[in-house]
Amino acid sequence: MELTVYLAGQIHDDWRNDVKAQAKEKKLPLQFVGPQENHERSDNIGESIMGEQPDNLYRDDAASSINNFRTQVLLHKSDAVIALFGESYKQWNTAMDASAAIQLRKPLILIRPKSLIHPLKELSNQADVTVETIDQALAVLSYIYE
Amino acid sequence: MELTVYLAGQIHDDWRNDVKAQAKEKKLPLQFVGPQENHERSDNIGESIMGEQPDNLYRDDAASSINNFRTQVLLHKSDAVIALFGESYKQWNTAMDASAAIQLRKPLILIRPKSLIHPLKELSNQADVTVETIDQALAVLSYIYE
Amino acid sequence: MELTVYLAGQIHDDWRNDVKAQAKEKKLPLQFVGPQENHERSDNIGESIMGEQPDNLYRDDAASSINNFRTQVLLHKSDAVIALFGESYKQWNTAMDASAAIQLRKPLILIRPKSLIHPLKELSNQADVTVETIDQALAVLSYIYE
Amino acid sequence: MELTVYLAGQIHDDWRNDVKAQAKEKKLPLQFVGPQENHERSDNIGESIMGEQPDNLYRDDAASSINNFRTQVLLHKSDAVIALFGESYKQWNTAMDASAAIQLRKPLILIRPKSLIHPLKELSNQADVTVETIDQALAVLSYIYE
Amino acid sequence: MELTVYLAGQIHDDWRNDVKAQAKEKKLPLQFVGPQENHERSDNIGESIMGEQPDNLYRDDAASSINNFRTQVLLHKSDAVIALFGESYKQWNTAMDASAAIQLRKPLILIRPKSLIHPLKELSNQADVTVETIDQALAVLSYIYE
Amino acid sequence: MELTVYLAGQIHDDWRNDVKAQAKEKKLPLQFVGPQENHERSDNIGESIMGEQPDNLYRDDAASSINNFRTQVLLHKSDAVIALFGESYKQWNTAMDASAAIQLRKPLILIRPKSLIHPLKELSNQADVTVETIDQALAVLSYIYE
Amino acid sequence: MELTVYLAGQIHDDWRNDVKAQAKEKKLPLQFVGPQENHERSDNIGESIMGEQPDNLYRDDAASSINNFRTQVLLHKSDAVIALFGESYKQWNTAMDASAAIQLRKPLILIRPKSLIHPLKELSNQADVTVETIDQALAVLSYIYE
Amino acid sequence: MELTVYLAGQIHDDWRNDVKAQAKEKKLPLQFVGPQENHERSDNIGESIMGEQPDNLYRDDAASSINNFRTQVLLHKSDAVIALFGESYKQWNTAMDASAAIQLRKPLILIRPKSLIHPLKELSNQADVTVETIDQALAVLSYIYE
Repeated sequence: MELTVYLAGQIHDDWRNDVKAQAKEKKLPLQFVGPQENHERSDNIGESIMGEQPDNLYRDDAASSINNFRTQVLLHKSDAVIALFGESYKQWNTAMDASAAIQLRKPLILIRPKSLIHPLKELSNQADVTVETIDQALAVLSYIYE
Repeated sequence: MELTVYLAGQIHDDWRNDVKAQAKEKKLPLQFVGPQENHERSDNIGESIMGEQPDNLYRDDAASSINNFRTQVLLHKSDAVIALFGESYKQWNTAMDASAAIQLRKPLILIRPKSLIHPLKELSNQADVTVETIDQALAVLSYIYE
Repeated sequence: MELTVYLAGQIHDDWRNDVKAQAKEKKLPLQFVGPQENHERSDNIGESIMGEQPDNLYRDDAASSINNFRTQVLLHKSDAVIALFGESYKQWNTAMDASAAIQLRKPLILIRPKSLIHPLKELSNQADVTVETIDQALAVLSYIYE
Repeated sequence: MELTVYLAGQIHDDWRNDVKAQAKEKKLPLQFVGPQENHERSDNIGESIMGEQPDNLYRDDAASSINNFRTQVLLHKSDAVIALFGESYKQWNTAMDASAAIQLRKPLILIRPKSLIHPLKELSNQADVTVETIDQALAVLSYIYE
Repeated sequence: MELTVYLAGQIHDDWRNDVKAQAKEKKLPLQFVGPQENHERSDNIGESIMGEQPDNLYRDDAASSINNFRTQVLLHKSDAVIALFGESYKQWNTAMDASAAIQLRKPLILIRPKSLIHPLKELSNQADVTVETIDQALAVLSYIYE
Repeated sequence: MELTVYLAGQIHDDWRNDVKAQAKEKKLPLQFVGPQENHERSDNIGESIMGEQPDNLYRDDAASSINNFRTQVLLHKSDAVIALFGESYKQWNTAMDASAAIQLRKPLILIRPKSLIHPLKELSNQADVTVETIDQALAVLSYIYE
Repeated sequence: MELTVYLAGQIHDDWRNDVKAQAKEKKLPLQFVGPQENHERSDNIGESIMGEQPDNLYRDDAASSINNFRTQVLLHKSDAVIALFGESYKQWNTAMDASAAIQLRKPLILIRPKSLIHPLKELSNQADVTVETIDQALAVLSYIYE
Repeated sequence: MELTVYLAGQIHDDWRNDVKAQAKEKKLPLQFVGPQENHERSDNIGESIMGEQPDNLYRDDAASSINNFRTQVLLHKSDAVIALFGESYKQWNTAMDASAAIQLRKPLILIRPKSLIHPLKELSNQADVTVETIDQALAVLSYIYE
């Protein structure tokens, strides 16, 4: 049984490659989807398609409309969601995607470091599983196939 | 027509009183609900009811389970949601509540300062209305009754 | 049993007063809600609350976000919807509200003149009832209480 | 990941071929579906299957019941929707399909010329993305696969 | 706790009065709603409001659109449904309302005589409770308040 | 695009073979599912699996539980439903399946002879398309692929 | 804000009176509903209304159909659910009601003694809050009103 | 038509192998999924992935979060559910999964011995089919393909 997993979270480093590599190594029949990982491309996509915008507010709104469109399409196709939080960045769109997954009944694995236990406590409490590392998240996904 | 509005956001200052005072002044038939606003009480509620927990992780999880229970009950009774973001704190539970409102089709007003335009762009794009001040949010609520 | 009815349609004349007057005359326990009927106010509401916008596109988007917020709140509180089409104006938001009512399972009465039979045929076919006059729509609402 | 996209909009010219040609050129794994594009066939389908109707009202209602059946089947199979508005025709069924997509949580791209900004402002505000050209809509679809 | 009960079934005799009288006698806080019980009025309502129709097919379709509108409004307001079948008439709209109640998760009491056990077996199997008399149905409703 | 169509209706003659033959002849990529068509098998299935029952009531209830299980599984897999009514038999489970299709948003084609216009008027009014013959129903399905 | 709370669990002692007494003492605006608490009445209700049944299987099925009807009506009216497990009895209908509450998004408080931690671990993990005593459950409900 | 069936129930013996063997023998195109069947692995999975927990409560909660994640993913992919009850063990998670299946409209076959008729009467009454043996459950599944 092939499953599709949406990888929500920051796009400043290549943590998704680590997820994919581990899944491949474990030979798990998983397909991963997620947001645009090229940060500059993600921020520019609005003006890139719709043309120059009046200022940063409209530039950001144009970009986010296209990023949200992509997320909605892919999230609806997914069977489960991993949301990764780290110590940098605001990561409110990660929280938004994680909460949407909960409400859409997409089973959710939350990854967050020990240092974020307190500020993420409400979201963690609603997630299906909370772990601290990518290795642990893969172990949870792998467990489905045991 | 009386409406119930859930006020999501930080509980470190009394911004909700400002909302309520303005609604009263405008004589709007609104009932406001929201999270526990006593910060210490909110953090202690788990141990206060369930007894001492092994460490901070479990203490936070116990508290958040009760805070989430409260939020779920009140959010389901609400006709609209205001989510306020400020420059301090992680505010991931605010993002979680705002995203839940979107998925539950509860019309959402997002309040955030100009300085947060970029990190909140995806959430703002999905909110029904985004404004910068409490006064503006009240003006939107007031508009329902014109 | 009091029912709430959303009155979707153009705001260029006062057809809603006609609806309300007839309901009052028939002593029907109906509460009517609907969009902002002051056309200028409806078009200006975005800039009125959020301040001047860069150009008409953003001015219109700001206004429509607040108009849509109002519509969502009131439509969700409604037990039935009347959507009136006339021979003037584009009336795409009327079509949008009527279609939303269908998908949200809010029983829908469509009012349209004979001249619009052809262009409204798909929407009319999905409406619960299609009539040509406000009098007929009121007769349908009145029938609930017989 | 193959996706199915419903192409809502007028059937007076062959704009859908342009969409399909661009998707093919970009080698996007997209399957496009949509309404009957032969206008005469679409208007005649009721009488063609059910036999002669008493007058135009019933002729149109018979045709639209079959057109709506087709739309419902294909819309439910779709992962996203493009709704194109032009300067001619009433296009209320386009608005109906676009609004249905929003309520059914099918991510929606709205294409409309600058001249229609004002009358489409409420629908545009609820769409996930609004653009002005087919090229831009394809760029948005293409972005899913980057 | 006041509850609203929709009374689906034939309108050729006044069985609903029997239901209402028994509820009143038992002092149950129940509000009963249901279809138009004047049979002639129910059959004529389409032409009465929309004017003369080309033939019986269109006359029936006009009437049923208004009867269905009424049913939808009242069924959505109900907390439970009683569907009564007797030995006369086709009663397909009774079956339609009963099945709609099941799908809408409105708890359903089916009343049918022993003679109809076989043809109603699938519907009876899906109903929450099946009884043979109005007295029994009232006993079930009364049990909610014990 | 392959579609699955549930064929609801009586199982006393082999009308489903006619449907399947026509679809094959037209080379439509349709998969048809439906109830057990062996009438005796359908009536006996309860006792056949669960053993002898106390009397006909329980025999019928046992059979219908298994028939309903089958219907639920197959109806949920379907993209559209055809419900055929004829002049014989009570056909209340046909009405039940047709109404379930409407509530589950499965597009519905109703087939009924002219003689049943009046008793089926409410169900016909809610169906997406109503026709009189199997040939017409196939023409509607075929239209999806034009 | 008055809330309605469904009290799921065994009916062999009067623990619900304890809940109600505490809520009254705390002056909480709560309305409590629940199953028939007279055990004999609950077991006999099927035969009491429908007459003698062939054997215990059918006697139990008749009773449970009426008990389930009652539960469905009252559960749908509730804003939250308390499910209490004790050391005696199978309590599978308590587990059934608790799980239904989770799926229906009714916020759930689980009460269970320490001795049942292991066998209830999956249900406890899905409940919003798990506590060990009625006093604690009331403290959680009371917290909503702070 | 291939179907996926979730096998809920105890994991202390290998009853699922019996199910699978019979399906294979009957050449039914069924795919079976279910919980982790290695009991020790199931109980240890929390600490195995998340590390040592403070005591049994937290150990169980960690394990159940991962078991529930697995169940949610697989249950959502299933077309039907078999829930087997035996005379040993508490089996509350079996009841939880069965009730979730009912609320998620996944057709449910309940298997339970005669000795459990009384305590399982409410759950049995809501299941689509109740039988006493695995052979009977397979006969029901097989009936779909006749």
